[in-house]
Parts: sequence; C-alpha cells; structure tokens
Amino acid sequence: MEGIAIMTSGGDAAGMNPAVKCAVDYSRKKGLKPFLIRNGLRGMIDGDISEATREDVSGIMHRGGTVLRSSRSQRFFEYDYRKQAYDNLQKLGINKLIVIGGDGSFNALNQFYSDFGVPFAGIPATIDNDIPGTDYCLGVDTALNMIRQSVDSIRDTATSFSRAFVIETMGRHCGYLAMVSALSSGAEICLVPEVEYDLEKIGERLRSDLNDGRDYIIAMVAEGTNMAEYLTRWIKINLNMDARLTVLGHVQRGGSPTVRDRIMAYKFAVEAVDALLDGETNKIMIFRDGDFGRLAIDKVTDSKVELNQQIIKLAEHLSH
Amino acid sequence: MEGIAIMTSGGDAAGMNPAVKCAVDYSRKKGLKPFLIRNGLRGMIDGDISEATREDVSGIMHRGGTVLRSSRSQRFFEYDYRKQAYDNLQKLGINKLIVIGGDGSFNALNQFYSDFGVPFAGIPATIDNDIPGTDYCLGVDTALNMIRQSVDSIRDTATSFSRAFVIETMGRHCGYLAMVSALSSGAEICLVPEVEYDLEKIGERLRSDLNDGRDYIIAMVAEGTNMAEYLTRWIKINLNMDARLTVLGHVQRGGSPTVRDRIMAYKFAVEAVDALLDGETNKIMIFRDGDFGRLAIDKVTDSKVELNQQIIKLAEHLSH
Amino acid sequence: MEGIAIMTSGGDAAGMNPAVKCAVDYSRKKGLKPFLIRNGLRGMIDGDISEATREDVSGIMHRGGTVLRSSRSQRFFEYDYRKQAYDNLQKLGINKLIVIGGDGSFNALNQFYSDFGVPFAGIPATIDNDIPGTDYCLGVDTALNMIRQSVDSIRDTATSFSRAFVIETMGRHCGYLAMVSALSSGAEICLVPEVEYDLEKIGERLRSDLNDGRDYIIAMVAEGTNMAEYLTRWIKINLNMDARLTVLGHVQRGGSPTVRDRIMAYKFAVEAVDALLDGETNKIMIFRDGDFGRLAIDKVTDSKVELNQQIIKLAEHLSH
Amino acid sequence: MEGIAIMTSGGDAAGMNPAVKCAVDYSRKKGLKPFLIRNGLRGMIDGDISEATREDVSGIMHRGGTVLRSSRSQRFFEYDYRKQAYDNLQKLGINKLIVIGGDGSFNALNQFYSDFGVPFAGIPATIDNDIPGTDYCLGVDTALNMIRQSVDSIRDTATSFSRAFVIETMGRHCGYLAMVSALSSGAEICLVPEVEYDLEKIGERLRSDLNDGRDYIIAMVAEGTNMAEYLTRWIKINLNMDARLTVLGHVQRGGSPTVRDRIMAYKFAVEAVDALLDGETNKIMIFRDGDFGRLAIDKVTDSKVELNQQIIKLAEHLSH
Repeated sequence: MEGIAIMTSGGDAAGMNPAVKCAVDYSRKKGLKPFLIRNGLRGMIDGDISEATREDVSGIMHRGGTVLRSSRSQRFFEYDYRKQAYDNLQKLGINKLIVIGGDGSFNALNQFYSDFGVPFAGIPATIDNDIPGTDYCLGVDTALNMIRQSVDSIRDTATSFSRAFVIETMGRHCGYLAMVSALSSGAEICLVPEVEYDLEKIGERLRSDLNDGRDYIIAMVAEGTNMAEYLTRWIKINLNMDARLTVLGHVQRGGSPTVRDRIMAYKFAVEAVDALLDGETNKIMIFRDGDFGRLAIDKVTDSKVELNQQIIKLAEHLSH
Repeated sequence: MEGIAIMTSGGDAAGMNPAVKCAVDYSRKKGLKPFLIRNGLRGMIDGDISEATREDVSGIMHRGGTVLRSSRSQRFFEYDYRKQAYDNLQKLGINKLIVIGGDGSFNALNQFYSDFGVPFAGIPATIDNDIPGTDYCLGVDTALNMIRQSVDSIRDTATSFSRAFVIETMGRHCGYLAMVSALSSGAEICLVPEVEYDLEKIGERLRSDLNDGRDYIIAMVAEGTNMAEYLTRWIKINLNMDARLTVLGHVQRGGSPTVRDRIMAYKFAVEAVDALLDGETNKIMIFRDGDFGRLAIDKVTDSKVELNQQIIKLAEHLSH
Repeated sequence: MEGIAIMTSGGDAAGMNPAVKCAVDYSRKKGLKPFLIRNGLRGMIDGDISEATREDVSGIMHRGGTVLRSSRSQRFFEYDYRKQAYDNLQKLGINKLIVIGGDGSFNALNQFYSDFGVPFAGIPATIDNDIPGTDYCLGVDTALNMIRQSVDSIRDTATSFSRAFVIETMGRHCGYLAMVSALSSGAEICLVPEVEYDLEKIGERLRSDLNDGRDYIIAMVAEGTNMAEYLTRWIKINLNMDARLTVLGHVQRGGSPTVRDRIMAYKFAVEAVDALLDGETNKIMIFRDGDFGRLAIDKVTDSKVELNQQIIKLAEHLSH
Repeated sequence: MEGIAIMTSGGDAAGMNPAVKCAVDYSRKKGLKPFLIRNGLRGMIDGDISEATREDVSGIMHRGGTVLRSSRSQRFFEYDYRKQAYDNLQKLGINKLIVIGGDGSFNALNQFYSDFGVPFAGIPATIDNDIPGTDYCLGVDTALNMIRQSVDSIRDTATSFSRAFVIETMGRHCGYLAMVSALSSGAEICLVPEVEYDLEKIGERLRSDLNDGRDYIIAMVAEGTNMAEYLTRWIKINLNMDARLTVLGHVQRGGSPTVRDRIMAYKFAVEAVDALLDGETNKIMIFRDGDFGRLAIDKVTDSKVELNQQIIKLAEHLSH
C-alpha cells in the first residue's frame, strides 16, 4: 500500500482538524496508507511521523486549532535538511503529501518536489482569506463568526451610553475579515489596507448621523492599517465621544469549526486525495465561483490576492 | 417617491431580520420609500403597514426569528381580502413588494400580481433549504450551526459510556439538515426521506465497528422519516446498547444569524431591490453555482427540489 | 510518597475534568503522588490505573464530559472483584481515593473502605443536583446554561407565530433543572415530580393571558413527570394552539464547563485532598449555605434530597 | 395604588434586564404600580418616566446591557435638578425607587432621600464585583463566562506554536475578573492591582516550566495595572517567545445573562420590593455568605471593597 502523509503548516486555522480527519478517512477508503506528520515542516525533518490510528483522528472534527501542531522552520530552506525529511518519508514508504496551510508552506513543498519528486496537494487554510486563486480558505468562516460574537456582545452594551467602539481584527495585508465583519455587524466605519479612507469625510458623515439621533458608533479596523489606537483617540477628539478599543487578537483564530468550515474541509480533502490519485503534482485545491478545482502552484504564488470587488463595493461607503 | 413594502412570510428563519434591514436601507439609498408589513399576509389584509423608521431596523441584524412576525392566512386565498390588501397598499403609495419567505408565500404574491399588477421580488428563506432553483435559502447556515452545537455537546458526553445517541432534526420532506449535520459532525447513521436506508446493513456495519473498538454511535434522523423513536428502540435491541433520543425541535430555527446568513441576506436584499428597479416582476432571487440570479416564479414553483447530489454521494454510506 | 488515585464514576457531568486536573495538581503540591483510574469502578477492577502525567491533565479544564470516562459496574458488588481492585491499588502504593460522582459511587467506595480500609473523599457531581446534604453538585451550572441557550433560541422564533413550545429537561426524580430553567427563562408552565400541578387551572390562567394579548407559551417539563408528550397534545386541544415538543436529552450533559463549575471544581478538589490529609475517611465534600464542608457518607445516603424551598416558592405559580 | 419606579444607573451589566423585569412583575403582584425611568438619573430629571407595560418587559430576560439605558449626570449634583426630578415623581404618584447600579448611583439616591424623603432600594450591579458589603454584583458571572469563551478560543490555537498570550480584562481598581479568570482558565500569570507581583520570579518559574516541556503561556492582566503592553514586550525579551496581546474591552460587558445572573436578579428584585414594603429606606440588597440581606447605604459607601481572601490565596502563586 502506498503511503500518504498529511500535515498542517503555517498559522493555524479552524477547519484544519476536520481536513486532517477527512483526508485520513478518505485516503484509507481509496486504498492508501495514511500517515500524520506532527509539528509541520520541522516534524518532517525530525521524523515526527507515524501511521494514523483511529484514536489520532477520533473526536477532532469539532476542535479548533490543529492537533497536528504547526511550526515555522528555517532549516527547511537548506537542502540537507530537506534531504533528511525525504529520507524520513522514504523509510516509511510515503510518496504523496497533503499540506494544509498557506502559500509559504506550498512554496516550501514545491521546492521539495523539485528536489525529490514527491508530489503534494495543497489545501488552503488561513483566516486572512489571502491565498491567491481561491475564493475560500479554511478557517475564514469560523473566524468571522468568532468576531461576530464579540461585536454582538459589544453591541449589547453599546446603547447604554453614547459611545464609540473601535474593534481591531486580524489581517496584516488583507482587510477581508474587517470588511465582511463591518458589513455583517452593521458597523459605521471600516478601515482596511486595500481601501483609501478619508477621516475628514467619515467625521462629517457621523456628526450628521449623531445629530440625527444616532446613539453609538462601531468601527472595524484591520490590524494591517495600524490605525486602531489612532482612530480611538481621533473619535474622542473629533466626535467628542467616549471611545473604547478592543483588540481581538488570537480569539479570532480559535473556536470550534463552523459547519461551513467542516464541509469545506471535507470537500477539499476529498479533492486533494483524488488529485494525487489522478497523478497530479503540486496542485493547490481551490474553490472559485462556487466550484472546486485544482490550480498549479505557480499560478498561486505568482499572482497577487485581491479583495473581492463585490465586498469592496458593498462596504466602501464605510471608509469615507 | 415610490413606496416599496417589505414583509416576512411563512415559517421564520434566521437571516430574515438582516434581510429586512438591508432591504430598507438599500431601498432608501435608491430613492424609494420603504414600508414594513407586519404579520405577513394577514397584516397586509389588516393594514398592519407603516413607513420604516430608523428605530424599526436598528439593532435587528443579530436577532433570530423575524421582528416583523409572520402568519399563515387562509383569507388571502379569497379575492375580496386580496382586494382589501391592495387598497391598503394603494392608500400608502406602495407599488413594489419584497417578500422574504418560502414558495407558498411566493405563490400567494404571484396571484396578487395577476389580480392587481403589483410586482414583487422574492427572497428565499427557510431552514429546510427546499426551495427549487436556489442552492441556498436564508436560515440554513444558522440552523446547521445550531444543530452542530447540540451535537458537539452530546459528543462531549458520548465517550463516557458506550452509548448511542439519536438526534432528530427538522425536515419534513427534505433531508438536507440531517445529511449535512451527519457529515459535519461525523455521525455514523443518517436517515433522510430521499435516500433508501437499510437497517440490516447498518446493523452489520456498526456491530463490526463496535467489535473494532468503537465507543459510541451518533445517528441523525430527519423528522420526515418518522424514524427517530423506532431507531432508538432498534439500536437498544439490535446493537444491545443504551440509546437516547434528542428531538431538537425549534431550537434549530432560532439563534443569532451567522455571518453567512447575514451576508447572503445583504446580497439577496440588494438583488431584490435592483430587480424591482429594473422592472422585473415576480422574480425569485436565487443563488446557484456561486452566483446570484433571478428566476421566474413559475420556474420555481413548477420544479421539484432535489437534494444536492454531491452531498448525497458524500453521505450515502451512512444509510446502509 | 503516598499514592492518591482520582476517578470519575456514574453519569458524567461538566466540571469533572477541572476537578480531576485540580485534584492532580493540588495533590502533587501537597507531596502526594497522583494516579488516574480510567473507566470508573470497572477500571479499578481491571487495573486501568496509571500515574498522572502533565499531558493527562493538560488542556482538559475546558472540556465537557470526563476524559477519565465512567462506567457502571455490577462486578464491584462482589467481594472478589473488590479484592482485585484493592490489589491493584496496593501494587501501586495507592492508599487514598478521590471519587467524583454521585451517591451510588460513594456507597460503593464506602463498602470498599469497610473491606480494606482505603479512605476516600467524594466530590458531588451530577447535573440533577440531587445529592443530599449539598446545595451544589458539579455540572449543574453548565447544564442550566446549556438549557438556557436552547430555550433562548426557541424564544427567538416564538413570537413569529402564536405557538406553544414544550421543552423536556433531564431529571428523573428531581425537578431542579426544569424549575430553575423555567424561572430563568420566564416560562409560563413548569411540571416537576415534586410539585403537584393542576392542568385545569393552568388552562384557565393561560386562556386569560392569551385573551390579554399573550403571544406564545413556553413550558418546561422534567423528564421524570413523563408529561412532555401529553402536555403537547393537551395544549393543542385545550388552548387551541399549535404546540411543538423539544426533548433536549444529552445536550444538557455536555458543553464546556462554566466558570462557576470550574471554580467549584477547584475548591471541591482542594477540600477533598485536604480532608484526606487531615485523616478524614469517607467524607463527602459539600457546599451548603455558602460554605464548603465535609459530611459523613451515611449522612448523605440516609437522607433524602429535597428541592430547595425557596426555588419552589418562586416557581410554584407555574404549576397551576 | 402606590407608584414604584425602577431605573438602571452607572456602567451597564448583564442581569440588569432580568432585574428590571422581575422588579416590575413582583411589584405588580404586591399591589404596587410599577414605572420605568429611562436614561438613569438624567431621565429622572428630564421626566423620561412611564408606567411599565407588558411590552416594555417582554422578551428582555435574555438580553445583555440595559433596555432602560443608563447615563452619568452632573446635573443631579445640583439641588434644583434633583427638585425637578422629585416633581416628576410626585406628578406620577411615585414614592418608592429601585435603582440597579453601583455605589455612585446609590450615593446619589441617598442624597435625594435626604432632600425629599423618597426611599430607595439598591441592587448591586457591576461587572467589576467591587461594591463593598456584597459577595456578588449582577453581571459578574456573565462577564466571567464571556472572558472564558475568549480565553478558551485562544487556548485552541495556543498549542499550535510555542507562544505567549497576554489578555487584558476590565477592572480599574479591582482584580476580581482577572483573578477568577486566571484560575478558571488555568493561566500561568495573573497581574492585578491588589497583589504585588514579581516579574523576576515569574520569569524564573516559567523558564523552568518551558525547559520542562511547557508549550505556551497564558497571562491574565487587569486593566488597572496598566501592564498589558509592557508584559507582552517583557515576555518577548525575557522568555524569548512570540507574545500576542488581546484587549477584551467591552466584549466583557455584553452577552446574554447567564442563569446565575438571571436567578440572582430575580432574588435581588424580590428582596428590593419586599424591603421597600417593609418600610426600609436606603438599603442596599446584598448577598453574603450564601444569604441575601439588606445593608444600610452608609455601611456600603464607608467601607472599602476587598478582594475575596480565598480567591487571592488560590491565585497568588500566579503573581510570582
């Protein structure tokens, strides 16, 4: 029986565990022998690899994070360590890889393929939703719903006083989380790296709203703008309102995977195993325009991710 | 200014409130004058209609159910009552309607259009996901996640003893909720109206699993099969295990709308207003293959809903 | 170093895991060597016992159910099997026991003490809150909050139509869960085994309320009354309302322990270890009138649990 | 019929709404005529007062924040405005007051009593749990469980990498929230205003733990220490670990009231109405050592709140 190894790599995201479980179950059903690599690329080098047992993947569907753990590995950039990783796989009869993670991890495995010819299938997973070529990355729906719960809780308290609440979401280069959260929570301000904002105009709009009877203000700010603290002070001074800051931080990464993340994980995992059985090498599983597909790794890494234009259009009035 | 009235009708579903709010906001932005009809068709007859105020739609994004309430109305089948409803609209200058509900409500408004020529746009909303022509109905994602939380809670306790848990979901004619829940919670049995099941084979499979070390069993059963109580007894006798029944009931209908239901509500509402402004009459907003569209009412009501074939394929092994 | 073994026994309850973790940590701090017995009394007989490692109790604070599993064991009634259990403990140097569970388990260990002189401390844990002598049993607060979430979800949907919702909670002999849930969710009907109810009067009261503008009815029914299905039909016929049944089942047992259950677990565990170090034998830890204490096992098993009179007084108007 | 008015004042807290509902229902049952004052002391001056209707208090049990809103009012310090407030009450026949809030509000109403002889009963509500004389203030249990959910979510992700998480809770002068959260979530560090901490020793302890196999660190910091950002940087430098900050902010104030907060609200409200009917003036309802009682306002305002010694003892090892 051919061996297939499954790993998670890069920043963790909800949906990784269901993807691991489904990849294991479906591989086995298709006559492969599934292995688990723990601690990502580091574990691959250090031989932290074992055949998947029933216990390994039992009761993990509903757990956040990744039970396989993850890591960043500088060593993997060196050929000798990659060779060591390859030897580990060889010894166990593993000649196929599934990696659940981001484009950094996909690139690393692409290099590994160039070196030793071990094909891999990539499953996109990152809460920032910033992997080019796919409309959806595992973890996004869960992250959005974690944010929603925090914002809804703040809203409970918002009407008690006239007050502004500034909420910083994750997203270093990508404002997807902030923007969708702003829309789905009915925020009044949204600042993201991709859209130019105009505080002057925002101020005018809100002063008029406040005169009109508006009680409170909710502002969503993507981490990458570095504007959360500034905006909090700005509101105090310019709108003459008490303003409070919430920095959600890693709260957004955790939480039991939502149904959408579990079902997407299921489908991505089936697609990844099928792709490898079809003889594909180095394809990234994608979901685009409502359909699953496979995209060559260089198509992913050579392109730039862009925020969904429809979302931008729906939310742009919140930036000025 | 032209008047547009928004109503919810039929069984309530999460996502109705965000759809109401977005329809009101977007109508106003587009130069229409939004009205709200309370209590569905009954309120239309009884004149329970008023112009939408800021307060009406403030703070409703995150609330389950429908703040406009709903109803079933026998009277609406009679021309005289429909005429009365029409007069109510006339007096307020309303010549466009948005109805958020199911195909029964769409049909009623189609008849109303034949009588008096008031065009409507329909937004599909029902947790059963059983409206033909659209892949998604508002409320489905929230319902699935409510079920998930219950099943995850049961799973917490499942490993303490060797026990089987039978969980009945909603779905009179449609097994969508049961099937997707079975997949996303890793259930061992799934009985739905659309798929033939074979208890004999299920028994064989599970006896073998139990011998193999399986600890517990989770079974999802759609209400429409009427099998929940029978299966509970059947497991006790045939698998010689303690078995417990949970009937989720209306727990599934409530809950704060998920982000997906809010965003879909937003997009459906924008599409509905745009459709009416484009001069469309009697179109149902749909989401198919990843895209939004508009479908003539007779295309909706003349076709039969079918369970997504991909879901059936993924889950069919749970029925035998 | 003296060995102390910790086990969970009887029906599982949230708070068992935090109690296990705290008992392990605090035992070690006090110079004892903590062991874990898996699968309750059965594991004690079968030697399913090992020294507690950091991994065993890491990351279990927030998990529902019991990671040590539980069981019912007929064999423990026989001297020979108890002797076998005793030999298992002897071999490992265990001469103290902490059992987290209900009065059945406490009795079993009392017998074990009579036989072999191994003292134990009991920590009350059962969601029914029906252990005599203590105002609080681990798991109750979590169960109540799980029920609350379900009832709140039903309430979301309740106002959409005029409808009645009957919700069955756990509680074979004890109506505590149903009664506190009825109070905290503002239900209109509550049927429990301990309080006589009068459907005639309930009917009168509610008909008057419905005439007065009441929209919907929520009824909480304890499993032990066997009245859930009957009441559902009764409402349909006597109040002429659509009525729907929800049977919460094991949903109530699971869920991540609430803060109260974690803190109570912490304090019970500290108290149990201290009691054993003080040389106490066969005491049950209790919480009464706001204070922790230790009660002799026969004081627990000889008395009858009674529903808190204050709760009964607050809720009695819901039974007639 | 005598009029009784109910208001919320000061910072909002979960449990205020159930307290309002229960005070209204129980007042009416006792033959009083309940009124609602909106917007706290400001509304009392401005005459924002009306008789409580069924709709006012229907469906508010499960809502966070306060539907009556709150405010801070400088004007209430001036006799003339208080006189105006008194006249408002007189006109409506109100001669009893229930105020749900903190000691600032209690003091204001005490002054009001000195001026005009209108007795009040105070119900302690503040998430900081810092009102002297009572072990419990409404809102605390809900706040603790909101924090728990955030910390549990962070824990999901914590094991993926070796990382430290610093979480800032509310609490300007009182470390109760941080301390109980640290205990119930198994944190490794806890910094609060009331307990001296020793970063040097914390560093030693954790370096040793990390060498021992510890994966990640969770630190709870009370807002009042102003140490959250400093500690985050300190960990990076001194423990050589990636460290991330979460500032929970007003997330902690919201959320649907837990069962404990609802039941406590119920009992506090009954006690407050009974106290006024017993002819008591200016008593604060308290919960101490497991019992409800009434404490003279000067006993509350003259004493200093102190952190529960038992909690300090259980948690002190986290500060050094």
